[in-house]
Amino acid sequence: MFSFSVTAKDHDSRARLGRIVTSHGIVDTPAFIFCATNAAVKGVTIDHVKAAGSQIILSNTYHLMLQPGSDIVRDGGGLHRLIGWDGPIFTDSGGFQIFSLGHGGVEAEIKGSKQLSGKRSLLKLTEEGACFRSYIDGTRVSLTPELAIKIQIDLGADIIVSLDECTPYHVNKLYTANSMEKSKRWATRSLNTFRQLGNGEQALLAVIQGGVYQDLRQESAQFANDSDFQGFAIGGSLGKTKDEMYRVVDITTQMLDRSKYVHLLGIGGIDDIFHGVQCGVDTFDCVTPTRIARHGAAIVKAREKPDRSKGYIDLGHARYSRDFSSISNECDCYTCRNFSRAYIHHLIKAREVLSGTLISIHNIRMMNRLMEDIREGLAHGSLEEVRRQWCEP
Amino acid sequence: MFSFSVTAKDHDSRARLGRIVTSHGIVDTPAFIFCATNAAVKGVTIDHVKAAGSQIILSNTYHLMLQPGSDIVRDGGGLHRLIGWDGPIFTDSGGFQIFSLGHGGVEAEIKGSKQLSGKRSLLKLTEEGACFRSYIDGTRVSLTPELAIKIQIDLGADIIVSLDECTPYHVNKLYTANSMEKSKRWATRSLNTFRQLGNGEQALLAVIQGGVYQDLRQESAQFANDSDFQGFAIGGSLGKTKDEMYRVVDITTQMLDRSKYVHLLGIGGIDDIFHGVQCGVDTFDCVTPTRIARHGAAIVKAREKPDRSKGYIDLGHARYSRDFSSISNECDCYTCRNFSRAYIHHLIKAREVLSGTLISIHNIRMMNRLMEDIREGLAHGSLEEVRRQWCEP
Repeated sequence: MFSFSVTAKDHDSRARLGRIVTSHGIVDTPAFIFCATNAAVKGVTIDHVKAAGSQIILSNTYHLMLQPGSDIVRDGGGLHRLIGWDGPIFTDSGGFQIFSLGHGGVEAEIKGSKQLSGKRSLLKLTEEGACFRSYIDGTRVSLTPELAIKIQIDLGADIIVSLDECTPYHVNKLYTANSMEKSKRWATRSLNTFRQLGNGEQALLAVIQGGVYQDLRQESAQFANDSDFQGFAIGGSLGKTKDEMYRVVDITTQMLDRSKYVHLLGIGGIDDIFHGVQCGVDTFDCVTPTRIARHGAAIVKAREKPDRSKGYIDLGHARYSRDFSSISNECDCYTCRNFSRAYIHHLIKAREVLSGTLISIHNIRMMNRLMEDIREGLAHGSLEEVRRQWCEP
Repeated sequence: MFSFSVTAKDHDSRARLGRIVTSHGIVDTPAFIFCATNAAVKGVTIDHVKAAGSQIILSNTYHLMLQPGSDIVRDGGGLHRLIGWDGPIFTDSGGFQIFSLGHGGVEAEIKGSKQLSGKRSLLKLTEEGACFRSYIDGTRVSLTPELAIKIQIDLGADIIVSLDECTPYHVNKLYTANSMEKSKRWATRSLNTFRQLGNGEQALLAVIQGGVYQDLRQESAQFANDSDFQGFAIGGSLGKTKDEMYRVVDITTQMLDRSKYVHLLGIGGIDDIFHGVQCGVDTFDCVTPTRIARHGAAIVKAREKPDRSKGYIDLGHARYSRDFSSISNECDCYTCRNFSRAYIHHLIKAREVLSGTLISIHNIRMMNRLMEDIREGLAHGSLEEVRRQWCEP
């Protein structure tokens, strides 16, 4: 069971309100998907993830195929039971991790596996698939489009993604074009496997590749539009700069079948989310909310920031040592209802991992509040006002 | 407001049921006190500490005087508000940390500050007090009996402890005797400061010193009995072996005024708790439940252990990789209600700190269950049966 429907459209942009229905519940879009890379939202018990208003989480095929292995997840009743999360789950295909790492580009900071930084793990890339070195024990591991789908079906995720080669920005157009063509063939193989093995409960997304090249994005989008995918995930290189990223998202979203669901892979900046929403993106995922939390950074609206240049406040800063107010006086999260900035500052200084937990809970709530405000803005034709509240001091 | 009353006595031992009343609530004894060394139960949000049935937590003067400083805690409304814990709080005096470290003995593994292991931090010990090196920034810090009390009053704990010199096992009897005499003089100064600065809401405990020497323990206990403390904390060296520890606890508890509250500092083994309870100890504290959890060890009753020699199961062991049962099928904790051994094993292998959090929640619940069972056993004259259930395979 999967369906996506657009329930309202913005007048001033391609933004839209939507609803994803899965066998594990509903996702009101635009929505943010929280990363549970290793089947865990880092440092946060799942009851707190839920209490913070989260609708959907994402786990990584790359990580879970290596540890614990998809067979163990399947035998234990699937990812939902393992994690103790009864809502919708999104899994990626593993392509991003294998290739961003293999190419050794700027995207080499692999989500959730810092150990590998700087090392090339991709051993061999053929028409058949990819062979890479496990970041856990160094063994050779193969991943094909067929296997990526089988794994995601074993995991039991609600929304899964076809295997693609994820190209970084520094390869040339010819490489990007050949890679995009290979990703199309892999997508077809992914779809065939999905039809054979799927139980009809899951949705399969095509990854839109083509780097920063409009004609290649067009070709990738056209292929995806013409195939029987339930939606699209915009992947690959979105460029070097924010402007370039905005341009790629802008042109790519225009190319896609507007009746289908659109996910933007790995983007989670607040400005970037407003831009994506205005382009018609329905869901976003990013490790940022919990990653920056572990470094003491708490998300607040622009006007609550002492330093207007950053999207967060740094609770490790000495200015918070005697600040007995909550992180945000507008926030209703567990952390803001119970703890002061001074307490969290102390926990950071005392190197208590609880600081990361408490800020993560806040940041998750803030991202959900952001998306709630965006949906409210879309419902009332006031998206731009919502954007100003969040982004302008 | 503080009172302690014995509500029932065991027929076969000196064990007793009791009730501590504080302005932040009641503690039914025998009870276990969970360590929130740095004003945080390591890795666990306080709502989970509470939901696991915890009655009382302990924070450390030594740690909090250095970070964030007791003035900040006081200005923020006290430790209860800082931590978000509205139940009773126990603070120690800082003596254990300063001296176990300073003497460089086997007790040098300081609770909560591994950084210092092997280094001597005690700079100077005089009649006036102790001067030690901060483990945070290396600055010289002084602690006197008066200051230890002032800090604990600023922290706002419900049960506080007089400053003592905590002697390790390897010093000789003469040193231990002189030290015990100094601790008596420090206890008198602590009591005087407590009378001056206290608001009548807190209880002050005397630390019983004297090492493994019966006559010195007797002298220390006699002094404490004759003074106006609300209770006793048995501290100092309890010996090299478990037998010696049992002997010291046994003789010391016999020396104390039976109408007053007795705490045994730093002991948390399940066998040891049963022994202490049988000697008449009312409360225990130890970092063990959360410390072993961070290393993958989950507390279970003896018959649930595959390896009868240990007091826990090691969830990092490969035997749990496909074990989809809960840690304990008798446990009602958040972790056991929601997650499998296989999931926690996976989290350990994936180095997710959530493994420590989930096992800590379980271990906290188990320690509370242990104490609930002990109280139940005392109420029904079946303490020995309870002990067998917990300790014998």
